[in-house]
Amino acid sequence: MLPDQQFLRIPGPTPIPPSVERAMSRPMIGHRNPETAELLEKIKPGLRAIFGTKQDVLILAGSGTAGLEAAVTNAVKPNEEALVIVTGAFGDRFHKICQAHEIKAHRLDIDWGEAASPDQVKTYLEKHPQIKAVFMTYCETSTGVLNPIAHIAEVVKQYSDALTIVDGVSCVGAVETKMDEWGIDLFITGSQKALMLPPGLTFLVASDRAWKVMSENERPRFYFDLQTYRDKLAQNSTPYTPALSLLFGLEQVLNLMNEEGLDEVYKRHLLMKNMTRHAFKALDLPLLTSDKDASPTVTAVKPVDFSADDLRQIAKKEFGMSLAGGQQHLKGKIFRVGHMGYSSPADVLQYISIIELALTKVGKSIELGKGVQAAQEVYLKQ
Amino acid sequence: MLPDQQFLRIPGPTPIPPSVERAMSRPMIGHRNPETAELLEKIKPGLRAIFGTKQDVLILAGSGTAGLEAAVTNAVKPNEEALVIVTGAFGDRFHKICQAHEIKAHRLDIDWGEAASPDQVKTYLEKHPQIKAVFMTYCETSTGVLNPIAHIAEVVKQYSDALTIVDGVSCVGAVETKMDEWGIDLFITGSQKALMLPPGLTFLVASDRAWKVMSENERPRFYFDLQTYRDKLAQNSTPYTPALSLLFGLEQVLNLMNEEGLDEVYKRHLLMKNMTRHAFKALDLPLLTSDKDASPTVTAVKPVDFSADDLRQIAKKEFGMSLAGGQQHLKGKIFRVGHMGYSSPADVLQYISIIELALTKVGKSIELGKGVQAAQEVYLKQ
Repeated sequence: MLPDQQFLRIPGPTPIPPSVERAMSRPMIGHRNPETAELLEKIKPGLRAIFGTKQDVLILAGSGTAGLEAAVTNAVKPNEEALVIVTGAFGDRFHKICQAHEIKAHRLDIDWGEAASPDQVKTYLEKHPQIKAVFMTYCETSTGVLNPIAHIAEVVKQYSDALTIVDGVSCVGAVETKMDEWGIDLFITGSQKALMLPPGLTFLVASDRAWKVMSENERPRFYFDLQTYRDKLAQNSTPYTPALSLLFGLEQVLNLMNEEGLDEVYKRHLLMKNMTRHAFKALDLPLLTSDKDASPTVTAVKPVDFSADDLRQIAKKEFGMSLAGGQQHLKGKIFRVGHMGYSSPADVLQYISIIELALTKVGKSIELGKGVQAAQEVYLKQ
Repeated sequence: MLPDQQFLRIPGPTPIPPSVERAMSRPMIGHRNPETAELLEKIKPGLRAIFGTKQDVLILAGSGTAGLEAAVTNAVKPNEEALVIVTGAFGDRFHKICQAHEIKAHRLDIDWGEAASPDQVKTYLEKHPQIKAVFMTYCETSTGVLNPIAHIAEVVKQYSDALTIVDGVSCVGAVETKMDEWGIDLFITGSQKALMLPPGLTFLVASDRAWKVMSENERPRFYFDLQTYRDKLAQNSTPYTPALSLLFGLEQVLNLMNEEGLDEVYKRHLLMKNMTRHAFKALDLPLLTSDKDASPTVTAVKPVDFSADDLRQIAKKEFGMSLAGGQQHLKGKIFRVGHMGYSSPADVLQYISIIELALTKVGKSIELGKGVQAAQEVYLKQ
């Protein structure tokens, strides 16, 4: 294998564009300097566009889980009831955070690989009128499902007065997102997925309704108190030391997304999804999710006649290509390929051709080139 | 197209490994500091191994052409006779340099796309006993031919007392090279091809025989006087300011080549050549060179039913993939793909799949995936 060559095809962290690497290597500045204020001001419009909101997007130094915990602790009081829609490992994480914070957290468990349906949520809410918040995952990274959050949010609004709180970590920035129009109250994402940055930042946006609820919540909190971030951001500042190099990178990420155009970014992700799914189907690989439920950012395969982990090992050992495995009860049973952020159809063609070789090496009989051909046909038909 | 994504598939400059980029961004040091001396000492064994020589390898700040000119002006006196074997644009450049320096330069012109044969050289030398130097190109970048320099050097030694002077720019470091064993007298390469660095360094090695001839050459020279570089290198120094960041990078390049093992590096290049040629044959693309004459580092295609330049434009515009065109009378008539340095079978699969798409777009009827399949089969059979 060629030393120093790595193809990062897991669903995050994702590859960093070279111009973003360069931006991040800019020398440190004082975080109370006017340059930091200018930077915070400059990145506001790009972040708003990605979430589809008029609200300011708060930036915390922390991983995505920090953002999920901040959402839970700001929005829900101890002993209040909440509903967590669990479609995979990250829905489960939301539930664990709720439990840690003494919230009466109901679980609506969906089979892993399927999306939640608005009807299920409606039925649940009608039975449990005390529910104050509904937590859900936009793209469930562990399965590659994209949940219909716009429709679920509509149902939540219609059948309860609960807040709709969405983990958007593995798709905001890659998939069309209209927070205000869809009536999402609290939306969270992270830096290391569609936003093409290293891990270390989490982003939160709240609706006016959510701000009202949060202001009435006296639960003790300090680093995660979102009101302090809001107050400081209004002055183009941060309450605590910001992760500056990631902000330097973010500025360039937003330049790149602006250069390409958000609609083109979303189209590219849909194209990569379609190329990937058609290729896997042509190779007779069983997909974990249906076409209807599939996320544009990550695709999971559940093989029946070879070991997913053997395939992943060969891809890593022979080509330096990282594919993700399964989590919890899917451990060892699936492999997942990420196609988001700094990823293109050229990358899809490459990972399909490598997966074909690895399939042959694990003993699966396939026609070489067939998956690539299927992906190429999708590319040409766009 | 994804902004900031570029696939550099020309035969140099070639992509830079990330660890080499990082090494090059090290802060400047004083070029007369002990650190510089340590660096110059440290890189000696790696460079010797690449050339297959016991001699010290001189490093000049300059492009490959600077190295070619230094070879000409140190080794041949004005009005002496020399033979230049011209198999393409870089053989032609050697001839132009000889002419500029008032050397009576004979040309042995070979059809572009073919290698020179030792017999042709023998015949020429027998007719022209006054020839003092024979210039040739190892890999002729403009056609993708690898000349049989070991056999030609043998003939030169047997049928004349001329020096054998070889331009190794687009293959030394990618193709097995045994300067001492083969009896090459002066060997030149550049930094931006198999050595995975940006352009800016040229490397020269001379045999004892060449050093003797050069010491007797009183042609005026200053920056290109190789003896001054030799004297300084013996003290781990340089006569003039060295291109330090490229030396920082070179140290890491040699680490990477050592980690992989030179034999593995050479095998990888042979594998990439074979994958590429089988793929192009499967796609019915006429190759400019025969299998026998083909270089492991660059492959040229001479299409008959589509425009090479149209194909290159589509690859660049839709995928950010740079392919090279033809030079001189081959301009517009061929395209060339580089597969050397920081390049792997994974990269080959990617450029074949993209070339397939571009072929379809220029109207050539091909079976999609067929070239990839042929390349995959070569990979599996190794």
